[in-house]
Amino acid sequence: MQEKIFKIKKRLESELKLELAPPEECLVGSKAPVNKASLCEMIDHTLLKPEAARKNYIALFEEARKYGFYSVCIPPVQVEFAARELQSDAVKICTVVGFPLGYSTTNTKITEAKESMILGADEIDMVMNVSALKSFDYELVLNEIKAIKDSLNKNIKLKVIIETALLDETEKYAAAWIVKAAGADYIKTSTGFSGKGATIEDVKLLKSIAGKDMGVKASGGIKSYEQAMSMIEAGASRLGVSSSVEIIEGEKGLFSQY
Amino acid sequence: MQEKIFKIKKRLESELKLELAPPEECLVGSKAPVNKASLCEMIDHTLLKPEAARKNYIALFEEARKYGFYSVCIPPVQVEFAARELQSDAVKICTVVGFPLGYSTTNTKITEAKESMILGADEIDMVMNVSALKSFDYELVLNEIKAIKDSLNKNIKLKVIIETALLDETEKYAAAWIVKAAGADYIKTSTGFSGKGATIEDVKLLKSIAGKDMGVKASGGIKSYEQAMSMIEAGASRLGVSSSVEIIEGEKGLFSQY
Repeated sequence: MQEKIFKIKKRLESELKLELAPPEECLVGSKAPVNKASLCEMIDHTLLKPEAARKNYIALFEEARKYGFYSVCIPPVQVEFAARELQSDAVKICTVVGFPLGYSTTNTKITEAKESMILGADEIDMVMNVSALKSFDYELVLNEIKAIKDSLNKNIKLKVIIETALLDETEKYAAAWIVKAAGADYIKTSTGFSGKGATIEDVKLLKSIAGKDMGVKASGGIKSYEQAMSMIEAGASRLGVSSSVEIIEGEKGLFSQY
Repeated sequence: MQEKIFKIKKRLESELKLELAPPEECLVGSKAPVNKASLCEMIDHTLLKPEAARKNYIALFEEARKYGFYSVCIPPVQVEFAARELQSDAVKICTVVGFPLGYSTTNTKITEAKESMILGADEIDMVMNVSALKSFDYELVLNEIKAIKDSLNKNIKLKVIIETALLDETEKYAAAWIVKAAGADYIKTSTGFSGKGATIEDVKLLKSIAGKDMGVKASGGIKSYEQAMSMIEAGASRLGVSSSVEIIEGEKGLFSQY
């Protein structure tokens, strides 16, 4: 462990009054799925463009059903509609909270998360308070994630987006340790709205802190089958993708036996 | 009035059961401020980058005091801090709701707006539900703005961001008529997060619908004194600017007598 990473770990442990496990490099390199169906089951089929209209969501739901994607990842205002449209399907509903800038208050984020759950969301992808992390207010970042987790039923998965594009290496470790300590279900790399998305290096870094009990969701800029596979090999167990159909259709050539 | 604009006006009047005034071209070309102080009084000095830390906001407040900007425009998580820091100053506090994608639910937007008011915000810049407008759900767009306006005290100004970069001409007219019908205080062009910001043409279009009683806030990409002045000449009565200091300092040469 580098000196600066060791120092941030000590600082977090002191300020948050908890013990943190060191990075586990050996977790990197999870088994990759070997067929189309198991790749589809790792994909949150995503449409988060503000200009997308009702008809675009209907098309998204149809694709999710057809390909067996794990979920559709959609804005809060679409959750109620999705719950009605997908009620007889296995496709889960994932939505976003404090998205994409992460600077709504904790109270607003809780309102948004709880309402989304009530309207039918199975998974909540919240954006961390990046500004608080950069202002060294680690307690605020931790308490916000905990409060949102506590406001949700046990069966609702909480993913925390740390927005890696805005963080330096030390901040990425700090964010990952805080998300882990808060008891979230997944740590997620990116919103896709603040510069670059997931990188192999970031997924490895996050997985080394996430350990066995917390998942890593890679998102932002994943556009090809090869990229998707390398994210999984680096430790991602969920992918946030808008180009899901292209990724799967592009895969046909490689797995023509299926 | 072009045929397609006339048609959308008729459709809005029929669906929303109200009467709309036609565009007033003669309102365009308001008197421009002639000195530095009156330009400063039209500026919402803006810092909405998710990675901005506490120290950056402290600097922003200092600039707002020094130059006499109308307000600071900041994220909801900074409002409480701003209210404390600026309590003995004339600088107003403006914050954002449902920002920047506009697809939080009405309920979440109301929570965010009311909490911001309670924490000390004087002005609320909310993002319209762009998806609903594009899905022809005009009633939802109207009712949301009305509900947020109703949830705020009378002295709190409500601006509605329609995100012109995502709209075609007909949609811009529809959005402007809805914002006007909802009784908002200002219609605002852009978030600065979805492609291009304010244009002269858009400000003229919005002012032609806003009329005398509603203001137009031009925002996004205003970086020079000349640009700022041309927005005001086109009908803007408020400017959302991050480069405020550069705009004012750049102006020195032109008004060296002050």
